Amino acid sequence: MMSSMTHAVPAAPAGAVPDPSPDLLQRAASVRRAAMGLGQCGDAERRQAVLAMAGGLDARRQEILAANQADLEAAAADGLAPALVARLKLDAAKLEAAIAGVRQVAALADPLGRRQLHTELDQGLVLERVTVPLGVLGVIFEARPDAVMQIASLAVRSGNGALLKGGREANRSCAAILAALQQGLAASAVDPGVLALLTSREESLGLLRLDGLVDLIIPRGSNALVRFIQDNTRIPVLGHADGVCHLVVDRAADLEQALRVALDAKTQYPAACNAIETLLVHAEVAPRFIPAAVAAFAAAGVELRGDPAAVALGVLHAATVDDWSAEYSDLILAVKVVADLEEALAHIATYGSRHTDAICTTDPQAADHFLAAVDSAGVFLNCSTRFADGFRYGFGAEVGISTQTLPPRGPVGLEGLVTYRYRLRGEGHVAADYASGARQFSHRSLPL
Amino acid sequence: MMSSMTHAVPAAPAGAVPDPSPDLLQRAASVRRAAMGLGQCGDAERRQAVLAMAGGLDARRQEILAANQADLEAAAADGLAPALVARLKLDAAKLEAAIAGVRQVAALADPLGRRQLHTELDQGLVLERVTVPLGVLGVIFEARPDAVMQIASLAVRSGNGALLKGGREANRSCAAILAALQQGLAASAVDPGVLALLTSREESLGLLRLDGLVDLIIPRGSNALVRFIQDNTRIPVLGHADGVCHLVVDRAADLEQALRVALDAKTQYPAACNAIETLLVHAEVAPRFIPAAVAAFAAAGVELRGDPAAVALGVLHAATVDDWSAEYSDLILAVKVVADLEEALAHIATYGSRHTDAICTTDPQAADHFLAAVDSAGVFLNCSTRFADGFRYGFGAEVGISTQTLPPRGPVGLEGLVTYRYRLRGEGHVAADYASGARQFSHRSLPL
Repeated sequence: MMSSMTHAVPAAPAGAVPDPSPDLLQRAASVRRAAMGLGQCGDAERRQAVLAMAGGLDARRQEILAANQADLEAAAADGLAPALVARLKLDAAKLEAAIAGVRQVAALADPLGRRQLHTELDQGLVLERVTVPLGVLGVIFEARPDAVMQIASLAVRSGNGALLKGGREANRSCAAILAALQQGLAASAVDPGVLALLTSREESLGLLRLDGLVDLIIPRGSNALVRFIQDNTRIPVLGHADGVCHLVVDRAADLEQALRVALDAKTQYPAACNAIETLLVHAEVAPRFIPAAVAAFAAAGVELRGDPAAVALGVLHAATVDDWSAEYSDLILAVKVVADLEEALAHIATYGSRHTDAICTTDPQAADHFLAAVDSAGVFLNCSTRFADGFRYGFGAEVGISTQTLPPRGPVGLEGLVTYRYRLRGEGHVAADYASGARQFSHRSLPL
Repeated sequence: MMSSMTHAVPAAPAGAVPDPSPDLLQRAASVRRAAMGLGQCGDAERRQAVLAMAGGLDARRQEILAANQADLEAAAADGLAPALVARLKLDAAKLEAAIAGVRQVAALADPLGRRQLHTELDQGLVLERVTVPLGVLGVIFEARPDAVMQIASLAVRSGNGALLKGGREANRSCAAILAALQQGLAASAVDPGVLALLTSREESLGLLRLDGLVDLIIPRGSNALVRFIQDNTRIPVLGHADGVCHLVVDRAADLEQALRVALDAKTQYPAACNAIETLLVHAEVAPRFIPAAVAAFAAAGVELRGDPAAVALGVLHAATVDDWSAEYSDLILAVKVVADLEEALAHIATYGSRHTDAICTTDPQAADHFLAAVDSAGVFLNCSTRFADGFRYGFGAEVGISTQTLPPRGPVGLEGLVTYRYRLRGEGHVAADYASGARQFSHRSLPL
């Protein structure tokens, strides 16, 4: 027994994360109270509320664009990197698209009140499992003003409050957007207090310690940001730190198809987490596949880094051991020749991040073995890893991609923002009657 | 942005938990390898394997009972408390029942390979979501030898390996049981290496740090043990520290029925986590209900502790503020008079543990409001909280009861030991064709 160890319990993960301030605790509790009201609103009310949020953005376009302009000027004065400036920038067209996105969220099917289980335990004693909101989301993202609009609308659509913390370079933009969203909500059945903006670094650190007030943290940002959050909170985190995806070219692959898939999976959007980082080529087909791949990837501007066997077949650069676990997020691809499918599986088990891994093969046995043995959120056959995405999966929205083992994993739509509750309705039923044998359970399934 | 904070990241929750030893890491990796094979076994093979485990126990009855006798003698010499001795004791009848329990687990429906989603993304590009095992379970329990048999059979039935750590007082019993289970598995398609026993305190602490090798920790023991584990691991924990359950007697309650439900919920098994600890009585019915309850609970040997209004109506003992959050696990019940349903809801939100809370009322509006507003894993109407149990819910088995917000919550059956994986099968499909508009997604639902 370990109970004697309880004296050594630290109050929370130690380290850099300070206690939340009284002000933050009070604000979070206030969002939570408002969210409890939101959670009891019906589908139509929440749908209306999201449309009202879009209306609020419509009405305050000028203020939002002006605030963004001020953020951009401050960023220019601070010498912010061009890639970050591009994300920070919110012009009229981007704002228009974001408002249209909010209206699309309003149109999504209601994730709440879905009955997942319905069982008669005995006459007059009926059990249901129904979906309910999580409560309050904590969302931490980089300086991308459009993320505020998207996540706030997903939160309200799914009945959840949200504490939103954007990168500080976007503070003016985020504040203007939040004011517009709250102005919209004020004309709806939903309390504008369901949304709150955090602005300081202390607040975003404090958010990690709001156990009991925040139910899920959604980080949108760099791998380092996600890992820091995962390591410093006991609140569940929806997200993934790494996306080291593989494509296996099996000995029975259609090599032309495999090359087309490999090019798409690497180059269609190399910065995405579902782009491949490593190509594993079966030794039997490597002498035919690799020379063709070297030419095609060179034409696409991709740098290949190979193991000795791949280099012997024409790959220009030698890979080091670090390449097998690298997430390049760039036009670079590691290439390794494997003796057989087992070696490919072992490589993926060792270096993969359990995000999405694919095989190209025409051999049904090899396909089935790969799909059963690779323990990733997505296992693909004869198609690009780039399909691992909530919109492409048909979810209508994506709140994140999770690489954890427990559900939800893979691309997560609105269902990632809900949980369930058991409801049991009786007529004075007591457990003693079943223990004594006076009554028996029927456990009869009822229609959902 | 918070990326600058990554330098302050501690490697893990700090405190009393040391790094796992090289030996433990090696043993866990070996269980994981064996579990990967088990995870690819079909339903019949896993069912056979569990029956073979029961056969192994049958064959080694004498060794198991003798080992338990040795544990009991050592416990007597150490002066172990009688309640703990009772749990430790495994006589022929208890062993018989445990073996029958293993055979019942074999008969449970297969939780693996269930298709939860089936969508045609485009012609020839088909997405499935299917249930798969978690991988390896880490199970920490007190000195109850029967727990080893139960959890090992649930693990193998669901395709998972398990690292098992029992209380040290049961070490000889657990070792004899594990040897019998492995002897059984040796005659099946499943590698006996899917099960391993941990015996030292260092190993059970090390288990908490086996991220990447262990997918879920299941603690079975005291609240203090569960809380220690939750606070000291980043591996998901299935369980609950507290069970502070409430029963609300509404103004529109059938008072006779409410008293019967209250008595059952408190006395049918007071040590259970789903027994009530607090009774909240509407002020309008308190003058009629409380005097009757005082008599009935006194007759049942229950000590009542009331707020001033309850004491004024006959409750003998005065409650202190600590009573509202106490999990007595004993024949003690706190009683509070509330002005209205809102006060009851606020009390539950403040002091409850989100396990199971019930209301007795004949008012449909009050019932609906309670069932919607109380944010617990179980919300019950006109029945005892004691029904919150995997067997009573009809799951056939219970691996734990979770009070967390995210699924799985409430009583968890075999489905808590599985996760899912997305499988996408194509014919050379690439994402660029959809980005360019050359192809469109159909997102057509296919039959499950």
